[in-house]
Order: sequence, then C-alpha cells, then structure tokens
Amino acid sequence: MRILTTLLAATAIICVASCGDKVSAPAMQSSTYSGPTFESTLASAKARLQAQMDAPAVIPVPKDPGGGYTHEKHKANSTLIYEAGQLYKLTGEKQYADFAGKLLLAYADVYPQWPLHPAKKEQSPGRMFWQNLNESMFLLNVSQSYAAIKDTLTQEQRDKIETDLLRDMADFLSDGSPETFNKVHNHGTWATAAVGLTGYAIGDDEYVQQALLGLDKSGDAGFLKQMDKLFSPDGYYNEGPYYQRFAMMPFVIFAQEVERNNPELEIFEKRDAILMKAIDATIQQNYGGLFFPINDAIKDKGIATRELVHGVAIAYELTGDKGLLSVAQEQGRFMLTPESRKVSEDISAGKSEPFDYKTIRFGDGEDGTEGALDVLRASKDPQDLVVVAKNTSQGLGHGHFDKMGLLIYDQGKEILRDYGAARFLNVEAKYGGHYLFENNAYAKQTVAHNALVVDETSHFNGDVNVGNQNAPILGTFWDDGDLKITTASIETAYDDVAFDRTVAIIKDQAFENPIIVDLVEAHSETPHQYDLPFHYNGQIIETNFKLAAYKNMRAPLGNKNGYEYLWKVADSKAVDGLSQVTFLLDTRFYTITSSVPQNTDVIFTEVGANDPNFNLRREPAFILRSRKSDGVSYASVFEPHGEYNPTVEFTLESHSRVKSVKHYENGGDELIVIETKSGEVVALGVSGDADEAKPHSVSANGKDMTWTGPYHLFHSVAHTAGAK
Amino acid sequence: MRILTTLLAATAIICVASCGDKVSAPAMQSSTYSGPTFESTLASAKARLQAQMDAPAVIPVPKDPGGGYTHEKHKANSTLIYEAGQLYKLTGEKQYADFAGKLLLAYADVYPQWPLHPAKKEQSPGRMFWQNLNESMFLLNVSQSYAAIKDTLTQEQRDKIETDLLRDMADFLSDGSPETFNKVHNHGTWATAAVGLTGYAIGDDEYVQQALLGLDKSGDAGFLKQMDKLFSPDGYYNEGPYYQRFAMMPFVIFAQEVERNNPELEIFEKRDAILMKAIDATIQQNYGGLFFPINDAIKDKGIATRELVHGVAIAYELTGDKGLLSVAQEQGRFMLTPESRKVSEDISAGKSEPFDYKTIRFGDGEDGTEGALDVLRASKDPQDLVVVAKNTSQGLGHGHFDKMGLLIYDQGKEILRDYGAARFLNVEAKYGGHYLFENNAYAKQTVAHNALVVDETSHFNGDVNVGNQNAPILGTFWDDGDLKITTASIETAYDDVAFDRTVAIIKDQAFENPIIVDLVEAHSETPHQYDLPFHYNGQIIETNFKLAAYKNMRAPLGNKNGYEYLWKVADSKAVDGLSQVTFLLDTRFYTITSSVPQNTDVIFTEVGANDPNFNLRREPAFILRSRKSDGVSYASVFEPHGEYNPTVEFTLESHSRVKSVKHYENGGDELIVIETKSGEVVALGVSGDADEAKPHSVSANGKDMTWTGPYHLFHSVAHTAGAK
Repeated sequence: MRILTTLLAATAIICVASCGDKVSAPAMQSSTYSGPTFESTLASAKARLQAQMDAPAVIPVPKDPGGGYTHEKHKANSTLIYEAGQLYKLTGEKQYADFAGKLLLAYADVYPQWPLHPAKKEQSPGRMFWQNLNESMFLLNVSQSYAAIKDTLTQEQRDKIETDLLRDMADFLSDGSPETFNKVHNHGTWATAAVGLTGYAIGDDEYVQQALLGLDKSGDAGFLKQMDKLFSPDGYYNEGPYYQRFAMMPFVIFAQEVERNNPELEIFEKRDAILMKAIDATIQQNYGGLFFPINDAIKDKGIATRELVHGVAIAYELTGDKGLLSVAQEQGRFMLTPESRKVSEDISAGKSEPFDYKTIRFGDGEDGTEGALDVLRASKDPQDLVVVAKNTSQGLGHGHFDKMGLLIYDQGKEILRDYGAARFLNVEAKYGGHYLFENNAYAKQTVAHNALVVDETSHFNGDVNVGNQNAPILGTFWDDGDLKITTASIETAYDDVAFDRTVAIIKDQAFENPIIVDLVEAHSETPHQYDLPFHYNGQIIETNFKLAAYKNMRAPLGNKNGYEYLWKVADSKAVDGLSQVTFLLDTRFYTITSSVPQNTDVIFTEVGANDPNFNLRREPAFILRSRKSDGVSYASVFEPHGEYNPTVEFTLESHSRVKSVKHYENGGDELIVIETKSGEVVALGVSGDADEAKPHSVSANGKDMTWTGPYHLFHSVAHTAGAK
Repeated sequence: MRILTTLLAATAIICVASCGDKVSAPAMQSSTYSGPTFESTLASAKARLQAQMDAPAVIPVPKDPGGGYTHEKHKANSTLIYEAGQLYKLTGEKQYADFAGKLLLAYADVYPQWPLHPAKKEQSPGRMFWQNLNESMFLLNVSQSYAAIKDTLTQEQRDKIETDLLRDMADFLSDGSPETFNKVHNHGTWATAAVGLTGYAIGDDEYVQQALLGLDKSGDAGFLKQMDKLFSPDGYYNEGPYYQRFAMMPFVIFAQEVERNNPELEIFEKRDAILMKAIDATIQQNYGGLFFPINDAIKDKGIATRELVHGVAIAYELTGDKGLLSVAQEQGRFMLTPESRKVSEDISAGKSEPFDYKTIRFGDGEDGTEGALDVLRASKDPQDLVVVAKNTSQGLGHGHFDKMGLLIYDQGKEILRDYGAARFLNVEAKYGGHYLFENNAYAKQTVAHNALVVDETSHFNGDVNVGNQNAPILGTFWDDGDLKITTASIETAYDDVAFDRTVAIIKDQAFENPIIVDLVEAHSETPHQYDLPFHYNGQIIETNFKLAAYKNMRAPLGNKNGYEYLWKVADSKAVDGLSQVTFLLDTRFYTITSSVPQNTDVIFTEVGANDPNFNLRREPAFILRSRKSDGVSYASVFEPHGEYNPTVEFTLESHSRVKSVKHYENGGDELIVIETKSGEVVALGVSGDADEAKPHSVSANGKDMTWTGPYHLFHSVAHTAGAK
C-alpha cells in the first residue's frame, strides 16, 4: 500500500459509528480511596519544616556542578523557602513566614557578590548554579514564596530582598541571559515564568511584559510565543511525554498567576486552550501510571511526578472535570496549594469519576503536521489493551530512531516493550547518573525497538539532523468501536526503501479478547535484508517451528547499530510462510502469528552482549528476517488469550486460536485474512485512500472482498449474524 | 565453628530480651478493605449456578486421564454439586437443593456400573478418575452437599443416592483401597476425610470410626494418626508450604465436621492444637502473599489458594484471632460457608488487626528433630526484611538439594531467590504441564540455590534417599530484637566436607536499615572447590573489582549437576580478600560484602545454557569460588541501602556503607567485624555452645572481644552510647 492521502490533516479523526467507547463498568474504583491526602501531606511538610527551622541557614558559596554539595544545597533551600511560604499561606502561622523571610534575607546578603558560577556550563551559565536553568527554578520557587509572605516583612526587609535577590536574579535571567530568555525552548519557559512570577510578586509589570512578550516586548519571543510553538495543536510535546511533563511545570505555574492577575488575557483559552490540552495529553500518554517510554525516557517516570500533580490540580480548578480526580488518586500525592487541597477534599467526598482515556491521534509539530503519536485503546479501562504507534517526528536530540515503532500494553503491563533510555538517573556508579554510552549505541538504535530495520542499519542512518527533517506521512486514523486503526508511511528513513505500517485493534467474537493486526510493508527495487523485531515481555511457551536455542555458545547478532548488544539465542525458520510464537506473561498468554515470506528466519535474541559493565537490562526479543529483492510484507496478528492461574490451579486456552494469517493485495488495496482453528474468518481491508465513498476490492482465495472507504473490518460470520 | 549442641531441642527458642518485635505502626491498613466480599462471592456463585441449572446434566463415562475431558467434567460437576448444596444451606432456596439432588441421582444411576478407570494409574487407581485421590476429592465435595440437601429428598431418592453413590464410593475408597486409606500420607488424609464426611452425611458411624482410626479401627492408621504424623510439633509439613497448603484442605474440612458431631473428641485441641498450628505455620511461610518457594514449588502459589481460604475462615471461627482477618483481606477471596461469611462481615466492620508475623523456628519431622525451617523477620511488617534459612530435612521426593540455603525478601519482593520448580502447571505445550526435565536437572540441584556447593556436586550427590536420612544439626535459634540469629550444620552432605551456616538479622544505628550477616564455613582436610552462589534479583550497579562481562561469546559454567544450565557471564577476582557487589531492585540498593579467601573468583552467571526450548527463566547470580585444601570461610554482610527515586528525581546512598568485613576465630568461637566508611564498627560473636552463661573471647586486630552465651551483638559505639 502507498498512502495517497498526504494532504490529509494530521489530526483528522473519522468516526464512523461513534467516537466513544462503550464502557460497561468504570475501571477505577473511585469511592474507596485510602491513600495519602492533602492533610497528611500538610502534616509531613510541617514536620519537615519544623526540623529545619531551628537550624541556622546554610548558604554556601557556589562551587559544585550538578549533583554536588552546593548545587543540591541551594536546590534544597529553594524548596524550603517555597514550602515555608505555602505553609504560611495555608495556615497563617507566622513562624513559617519568618523562616522564609530569614532565608530570603540571607540570600539577599550574598547573591549580588556572586559572579558566574566557577563550574559554569559553556552555554547558558548561572551564578548560583552551573546552568541558569537551575537559577530559573530557584527563582520560580522563591518568588512565589515572597509573594505569600511579603506582607509580614518590614519595608526595609522588602527592599533588600527585592533589590538584592529577586531583581538581581530576574535581571540576570532576562537581560543578562537573552539567549535563554528569548529562546523558544523549555529552558526559555522556565526563565520567562520565573521572571514573570517575580514581576507579579514585587508588582513590577515590566518583568511581566518581558516574560509574556520577550525582552523587546514585541511578542516574537516570550511565554506566549512558547505557548504557540512548543506544543502541537493537540497538546503533544515534540520530545515525548517524558520531557513533556518536565516542560509543563513553568507553563502551568505561571499561567495560573497570569490568570489571577491579568484575567483579561484569558491565558487558559489561548490557542484553543492549549495548556489544558497539554495536561490532558500528558495524562493520556500513560499506562499503568507510567509514561509511554518513547525516546530518551526513564521508564519509572509517570503521572505521579510533581509537575503533573500541579498540572492536574490546576486543571481541576479550571475545569472541574471529575475524571481528573481519579488521576489524582492514581498519583497519590498532593502539593501545598489550595488547588491540591480541593482535589484531595473532593476525592475524599467520593466525587471521583473514571478519567476519559481515549483512542486518539496526537499530531506532532508546531502545526500538527509532522507525524503523530497514535494511541489505540481497546476500551476506556486504563488496564486494557493499548497500542501506541510511534508515527511521530524525530523529537530532536533525545529522539530514538524508531519510525512507526510499536508499544503494546495489556493487563496493566508492557507486552511489547520499548527499552527507553539507557540511564540510571543520579546513580553515581553508572557514569555519574548521565546517559550511558549504551544510550546512543543501543537504546536509540532502531533494532532496540519494535520497528522495521533494513540492512541492519538504523533509520536515517542514525543521523538526528536528517531525522528532524523527515516525519512520517500520516494515513487515516479511525475509530468505530470494533475497529480502531491507523496508518503511516515514510520514504526517507532509507535511501531506496519506503515502508508503511498499519496497526489496528479489532473486536470480533471469534476471539475472546480484542486482537491487534499489524501490517508492515516495505517497497524497494533492490535487494535488502528486512528485520522486524518484537521485544516481547514474557516466557516462550510454544512456536509453530522447532525451537533450538544454542546450548553451548552464544555470539552477538551483529557488530554495529545496536546489533552488537544482542546475543543471538536461537535461529529458526518460519513454516510455510507462517511464524507463530506464544509467550506467557503472568496470567495471560500472547501469540504473535505472522504471515511472512518463504524462508523467513525467526531469530531469538537477548540483550547483554558487549556489555562488560552490566549497563543494560536483559530483555528478550524475536526478529522476523527476510532477504528480498522487491520489498517485503509482514502481516501479524497479536492475540491475548487464555489464563494461567496457579492459585486456583487451572489453565485455559494456552493455545492460539489462529490457524492462519494471509495477506492479499490488489494494487494499493490490502486484505488481511485471519482464519481460526474452528473455521471462523475475520478480515481487514485497508486502502491508502481517505475517501469514505470510494469502493475497494481484493480477491482472496478466489473470493472478492469488497468495501468502501479507507478501512473495513469483515467480522466473522457468527459475529455478523449474532448480536454484538 | 563446630556446633557442640547437637542435643539441643530442635524447637528451643531462647529469648534474651523479649521474643516480641516492637512494631510502631501496623503494617496493614485494616480498616479500608475494598476488595471482594462474601456477598459478592455469593452473587457470582448464584449467577454461575443459574447458567448451569437449566442445562441437562452431563455425566460422561470415565475415559480420560488428568486434564482430559471426562476428568475435568467430573471435577466440575463435583464443584457444582458442592456449590448448589452450600447455596441451599445459605439461602434456603429450594432450586439449589433440587439441582444438587438431580446431579447426585444422575451419578447414582451410573456409578455402580463403573469398573476401574480405563486410564488407571498403577498405584491407587480410581473408577471415576484415573487415581483415587480425585475420587476422594469428589466424595469430599458431594457428601457435604448431600448433608445439606438430604431433607429435601424423598426416602426413595435418599436410599438411591446413599446406596449407589455415597456408600459405593466410600466402600471403594476405604475397604476397596486399603493401601491409600491406611497410608500416612496426604492421599490418605483425603480418603479418610471423604469417607468420614460421608459417614456423618448418611449417619453411619462405622465410616466415621474407620476414617478416624483406620480400617481396623485400631488407631494405627486413619485421620487421627495422620494428625500425629504428617506435621511436625510446630505445624510444619515436611515437603514445604507449597505442598502443605494442599494437604491442609481435608484436615480442616473434616476436623470441623468432627468438632460439630463429636465435640467430646476435642479434635482441635489434639496434639497441642496441631491443626491450628498447621494453619498458622502455612500463613507464616508467606511473603508478599506467596509461599516461600522451597523445594518443588510453583512460585505463584500463595495464601489466596482455596485450601487456605477455608483454613483461615475455620481458624477464625475457632479462635476469633482478628489478625486472621488481615490475612483474609490479603487473600481477597471467600468461600460459600458460614465461617467465610463471618470473616467477610468482620472485615467490613473494620475489625481487622495486623497478623502476628513472627521470627520463628519450625522444627521439621514427626518429632520436630529433623532440622527446621528458620524464619527471621526484621519486624512484624510483612513487607519488611525477611531471611528464610532452609535448615530442614530433605522433604522426600519433592525436596531440593539445598541444605542451609537462604531466601531473602525485602520491600515486598524476592531479593535472593529460590528458583522453585521448573514447571508450567497445566500448560500443555510445556511437557503437558508436568514437572519439566529441567526440574531434576537444574531446579533441584544445589547450584540453583543460595547454598554452598563443593566440587560442583550437589548435596548427597543428588540422591534423595541419602538426603531423607540426613537432616542438618540445629544450633541455637535466638531473637532479642536487635539480633535475630540461627545456626545449623551438616556433616553428611559431602563425604569429607562438613559445613555450617549462621545467619543473623542485625539492627544498629550504623546502618539505615537492618542488615544480614551470613557466615558459611566448610571443614575438610582435603582440597576442594567451594562455590557459594547468590541468586540476586536486580541490576548490577557497582563492584569493588573490575567488571568485565564477556563481550563476544558465552559458554556454560560446567557440564553437570545444574552447572550446565548457567552461562558464565563474567569472571572476576575479589580484591584483598573482599568482594563487594551492589545491585538495584526497584527503589532500593543492596550490597553484599563478603570476606573471602585470597584469590577468590567472583563468577557472574545467567540461567539459559542448554535450554533449547526456553524452559527456564533467565535469572542472574554471582558465585564466590575458592579452591582450598583446609576448608573455607565466607562471611558476608547483606545491606539494603539508599533510595532510587526516578519519580521525584533523587538518588540517596547508592554506595554501600561497608568498608570492610573481617572474620576472626578462636577455637570454636567466631567474630565477624564490620567496619563502615565513617569508622563505625559493628561486630557479631558466634559460639557453637548453647550455654547462656559460658564466656567466649576472640581477639580481633589485637583487641579481645568478650561475651557470654551462644551469640553476642557488639553495637557500634554511637549506638551503645545513644538511645536505641
């Protein structure tokens, strides 16, 4: 299939029947929350502050880079100042204001004398910290605290703090650091938010205007520009959710203050409510509480992060959407803010409702035209089957080379995995906690993903600049309940190979659970090797070919582009154009049945070769491998089935129901036909044409299968006959 | 150290300060249970029965062995009959009695004509099933149902069911199968319980007496004998908790009926309340809801199994111990019995209290003198640090060859793992769901455990008969709060090597968490190779030696006794007699620091060699290996430390605090000295003498360390000086 619809708007969603999923029972128990509350958060903050308030203030002269003592001490002080200010605001107890004031004055004593940091980074250096990003974060905290407590200070104290700390720092971050302040980048958001909050705190509108409109107040830079540029129209952030939640913080904190002080700006309405969309998009991009780990992502990072706790509370304040309460329950954390208190109270009052998890396309890029992150959910239940199709653009320097890679989740767990970043955050023994060498060498490479690799070479030959210039071309995104489906293609990942991928979640009574259909096609007129890896999570149970893992030796699968990190564990041949692999994860079986070319190899791998320091996790995969002179087609069915229940000692349906998967073509039209062992037939028609009225026909085994529109699900006969 | 105290009673527990742990906060939230209830269990049983009641009864002629159609159908029918009887008892709705009666009559129609089963097992064949164990289970179910509904039947119907089904089956299982019925074995328990329940159901005391006292009613066999023989005086079951929970079922069900009909027997008081002890012991042998997977154990099996749900409910009925309610909450399941209803009601009424998890020695063997399972718990919090020292006897045919093997748990997870059984229960593709070949070849072998291996040979050379005759000799078991400790030794595992192991949980302010001290000593006058494996769970973070995993090839570590299943991943040398390995699991770091002989190898392994069918899980380990001509000593400190928190983005204490571990001896007295990087010193004195008044002294680095009694913890100075 070639996609004919390059002009199709990236965010178009065609709903044939209804765009909503039918949910019979709410997936989250909302009325029985028993976790932490705002009150318990407040109590522990009080206890924490109490322990600090009696101790003398320690304000060390800046010396260490990130992670070092002076760095961490100033970070900790800014948190103390912030929390003391919030505690004063929430409780009215003057001891907290006094403590915040004492620390602010102590900083005002010394800050003016600090030149650039001795360990300064070359670009965007700070004075208190090695980079001014941390200085922005400091000012964001302390300016909020100052606003809360300034009424408790003498005029003299106010003058001193404003002049020697807040203005000095705000000037340094604005006029003193124009390259950061005026940059459309998340560091710029932090700087403008910090300076703008300072303006509100001390009542100087000049800072506010510079923050909103850039140093020259022209609007070519500044916070409003960043709102226009950093998120796609759907609220997607180019680098992915792991970085999105980091970028969110200054946006929501400052916007809230803008709304309070300049309601006429209607900041939360701007760009079709882009900030609310961004918060929603961040939540939508989680499974089991953790973000989809595309690109450079620490996999443990999820919705419970501070940024998103603030974000959810502010969004709830603005929208009253009770679905956010169930997200807050999952977060299980609260902030020292009135909004967070409200969230906690409403949870305790039993107002939570299930969050509206959606099957949704997030257009990527400033205009939403540079690819998309496509999320297909079998239902609104957040623990149900989910497929993420990474049809996004490269995502800058933190991007991974997996065009149209897949992530699959089910029953609350990763089933087809993305490795995420090779990094142990802040763990000194692991390269100081930075990205490891293996991040570039393995984790970013295409073979580390569930994405097509041609000739053992990564997409764009691993060149991030080329990648940034070439997003996938999107096909139609479609959700009609029993069929949720998306398509994308790319011609620029390889010199003379174009490829496309169609992924669908299908519901049909021939299968006990929803299944996934995955069609990968590559087009070329020259011979190539095509590898399609499936990084499965689980234990191999059975295959339709003879398994014969190497008994006495192992060697790496290749010597470059990430292949050198994979042990070749077994090498088998698909049988008569069919590969079938069943694995078990916890209580459920999963079978991937693939229609493949004759003589396709099925290679089993494990991560761990060329890893002398045990830097990589040991994860298994199998790879479909063909050498073909005229392109390739892999059509796979991913089938969750059965139950392994050792508690009650039964096992159901450990075998796949799929007897065969066949792939038929007619010009640009495709048909995948799935036959079950009991003789039921389910088929999926795919055309590259978005025209809903256009007819298509493919002959399958002598029978013409006809439909209109871009996609069509041919239900099994019993399904068609019976009630849905 | 040689243990001098072979005469010490196996179950002796010396409490120096207090045997109780101090618990500051209850670990389980008991008042906020929101899981299933008895009522929801009842509702789903009604729905399940409703669907069956309209269908015709299907009673197939016996044909298939275990797992086959006729086998599963009769099992399912017996469950239906049981549930219908219970539903009638609970609701009084006659439709359930009618349904149970209909099925019982249908069985009475055909059972008398059934000869031995066509697929009968050679030993103990059945008629309805291939083995009479299943026939006992059937009768246990249906006799209870008959008792519940018989008042609703006509005399004619009663005569038919009693004569043609219940008596016929009971006669077959008693007089017709004396070798099972009179055997002291869990199959015998099932048979006697089923026949005894039948006696009560139909009012024939002859069956009851045979059940209690054996076929000849002499008391040499039968249920009471089994109560005397199958559990140790502490309630431990010889094969371990996985088989214990299976054996429990007929004991508790039948005993409850005996109590009801023959209260004068005081069955629950017998043998110092052995049945209650057995229930308690089964619960004590879980962590995170799963049983300690010693011997042949399916690792997913835990306290939520049907047997223990019945057991907990019956124990609660008898004792009113509210700690059992929190166990029932963890189980999250209920049975269709009045006792289970009471448990559910009391949970809902908020009566739950934390279960009394103990540091406890479970003597093994009929008299409690054949070794012991020693469980050390850092606190009563079930998620806290736990060490299990497997100082038990062999455990018959399902026993593994790991004398004095260790299992370590922390934060709800396995840290040092036991592989358990190599088996995928009921998964047809995995050798029909039976124990795999690799169970004997790998999982049972010593190297698959955290236990000392001499000359790459398993204990007792892998001979179960030799193993059954030789239990470890127990040393003193001791719990004084800050020091929980146990010792055992064995001279029979190898021809000319004796070895002992002392394991302790220690609390001292020099460490943020409790630590474990583990001293393994082997004694021999001939040269041997000593391997001490640590099957750790996590990712290697740092070591005190250069790590250099093989980059381009892997080979098996050995060629027999389980070594052939281990890939040799890396081979390093300990530095100056010290090996230090840090790994990370989830949010916590763990460091094992070992004092070892000069030139000790530290070999890293992964399971997976010689496993062509992917039958084994890929689990890592490292092995301390020395070749010595005069025995060996490995003294290790196991230290949980720090926090890896990617959500809030901080990492604390990723490095071990331990600077050195040294081991000093003076004759039979031992001293382990642990020095921290900040200069604090904690030491543990160990003597093999149980005499509490006897003085001991060991010179450490020129300083005499003196104590009295079998063990002594020398706290760090600050600890001794400060408040505990």
